[in-house]
Amino acid sequence: MDIAELGKFKLLDELTSGFDSVAGNRDGDCAVIDGPGDEYVLVASGLMLEGIHFDLTYTPLKHLGFKSVVAAASDICAMNGMPARLLVTVGVSARFTVESLKELFEGIRLACRTYGIELAGADLTSSLTGLTLSMTVTGKTDKNRIVCRKGAGETDLVCVTGDLGAAYMGVKLLDREKRVLRGNDVARPQFDGYAYLLERELKPRLRADVVEALKEADIVPTSMIDISDGLASDLKRICKASDVGARIYLDRIPIASETFDSADRFQVDPVVAALNGGDDYELLFTVPVSYYDRVVRLGGIDVIGHIVPASRGVALVTPDGAEITLQAQGWKE
Amino acid sequence: MDIAELGKFKLLDELTSGFDSVAGNRDGDCAVIDGPGDEYVLVASGLMLEGIHFDLTYTPLKHLGFKSVVAAASDICAMNGMPARLLVTVGVSARFTVESLKELFEGIRLACRTYGIELAGADLTSSLTGLTLSMTVTGKTDKNRIVCRKGAGETDLVCVTGDLGAAYMGVKLLDREKRVLRGNDVARPQFDGYAYLLERELKPRLRADVVEALKEADIVPTSMIDISDGLASDLKRICKASDVGARIYLDRIPIASETFDSADRFQVDPVVAALNGGDDYELLFTVPVSYYDRVVRLGGIDVIGHIVPASRGVALVTPDGAEITLQAQGWKE
Repeated sequence: MDIAELGKFKLLDELTSGFDSVAGNRDGDCAVIDGPGDEYVLVASGLMLEGIHFDLTYTPLKHLGFKSVVAAASDICAMNGMPARLLVTVGVSARFTVESLKELFEGIRLACRTYGIELAGADLTSSLTGLTLSMTVTGKTDKNRIVCRKGAGETDLVCVTGDLGAAYMGVKLLDREKRVLRGNDVARPQFDGYAYLLERELKPRLRADVVEALKEADIVPTSMIDISDGLASDLKRICKASDVGARIYLDRIPIASETFDSADRFQVDPVVAALNGGDDYELLFTVPVSYYDRVVRLGGIDVIGHIVPASRGVALVTPDGAEITLQAQGWKE
Repeated sequence: MDIAELGKFKLLDELTSGFDSVAGNRDGDCAVIDGPGDEYVLVASGLMLEGIHFDLTYTPLKHLGFKSVVAAASDICAMNGMPARLLVTVGVSARFTVESLKELFEGIRLACRTYGIELAGADLTSSLTGLTLSMTVTGKTDKNRIVCRKGAGETDLVCVTGDLGAAYMGVKLLDREKRVLRGNDVARPQFDGYAYLLERELKPRLRADVVEALKEADIVPTSMIDISDGLASDLKRICKASDVGARIYLDRIPIASETFDSADRFQVDPVVAALNGGDDYELLFTVPVSYYDRVVRLGGIDVIGHIVPASRGVALVTPDGAEITLQAQGWKE
């Protein structure tokens, strides 16, 4: 049977169904381990493959290094934890030079410095094919502050940090320049005025600041996930894990003006970019409805909807009140 | 500059030299984190790439799954820890079927069951190129029982578990059959009498039993490593980390009769197979000389030499007393 036919998550369910024991928290990509005192140790692991997760024709290696760390550490933040250590393994083919690897590690180093992550180990291996990055990040969280995908309750508010769809438009922009410039080594890409979109795609920020702000405000979300595959897919994951449905309001979805502008030029619906574009690494979480004021007061967080019974499904509500069921995204869903 | 010119470990030193803070234990592939009470949490991560770490023309996927878990968990055992949890990410190209992935996960499941490891998370991603396996294993050890590569002292005994070189001969055997059978789908490989060598290569055992035996005997090695790249390379790593030299005796190196027999047929020196063949996943460790009787009493462990001052280097002593300096193995060293 073809893998695409079955879909990723059904396939994963099948593949892991025969295991004797599956550790407690399997609803994220994180292992949760007893730590010292009142802490859990969190471990998350991610794989970045050339041609799938990045395109070296337009991704500077330094940015790739930075982004790889953010992508893995984001899984720690999604459990309301703070990242602490990094293990890196890089598979490189002969075409890479020492200088190019130094650029890659310069980006990794910059991410570690920016987010206070210690390098716990680095390894290199040969690769016959493309560049392969394996990143394992450990972190920690107080036991009474850990958050999973499971836990969203009916009437809870659906909240999202930052803005969505910018990274997707950044990819569109880079793809266009790649097509325009193919076979032309002299011309430089025209990226003027698109700095924000490019930065969101090439050098995403880790929302560890949100984890800290939630702690300071004494707010523990009922569920949380980082938006790596798009708002639609990741909201559906929270709903599936929590056995609930959701309503989110189209006009509440935070979209940057740069995303609107470029979407217009690329004839892309900016809401589609926000719903289905990945790589934003913003946090999507739920809190009890009574937390509305406290969450809004934090700043940079939008309440975009609320949780409903599972029977009502997961839908987007348009300004005229129409409900559009959020669709699965093939392989990613 | 070409990567091969510089050598892997010098390159890694260069790549990681600019990091602000490098976590305490960087002499292994493991992160060491404070755990509950008197325990450390250990985290090890490994990458297995098609064409580099395995050849799918003769590696059954079930065996590959099993071996991948052992390879990653072996880094936990090398720190005198017991593996506990597994995070798996698999990159697959479209040519893989659901059935083939099930075989792979059946091997992963078998290794988990055999060694009491819980699956903490599994993920799939597309791959444009070959099959890519990223395995992260967590484990734990008592704080007063953790062992690193650093710590071997002068006059310490050099000990090795099991026997060496069998996996290397297993690869030779599989390579020969691959050449013989190329373009011939009907003939079956002739593996009669080679079961032991094939098992050592395709389904290596994890020496968690040795970690338990050492604990029961109240022995804490002064240094330890798992033999993944060959006795010579891995002994040199212990010596480098501990700033010592070593003498190992050719006629003390444990080599199975099957390895001797097949080496004869393939015109390979069995000692070279033991020194430079990888993938044995046996443990190489040092203990104070006063532990000789206690170590030997454990069974299945050979004392193959002793530690000397760094100035004397790392050498193999032949039965006639000649000393042969152990050579670095290019990329791997």
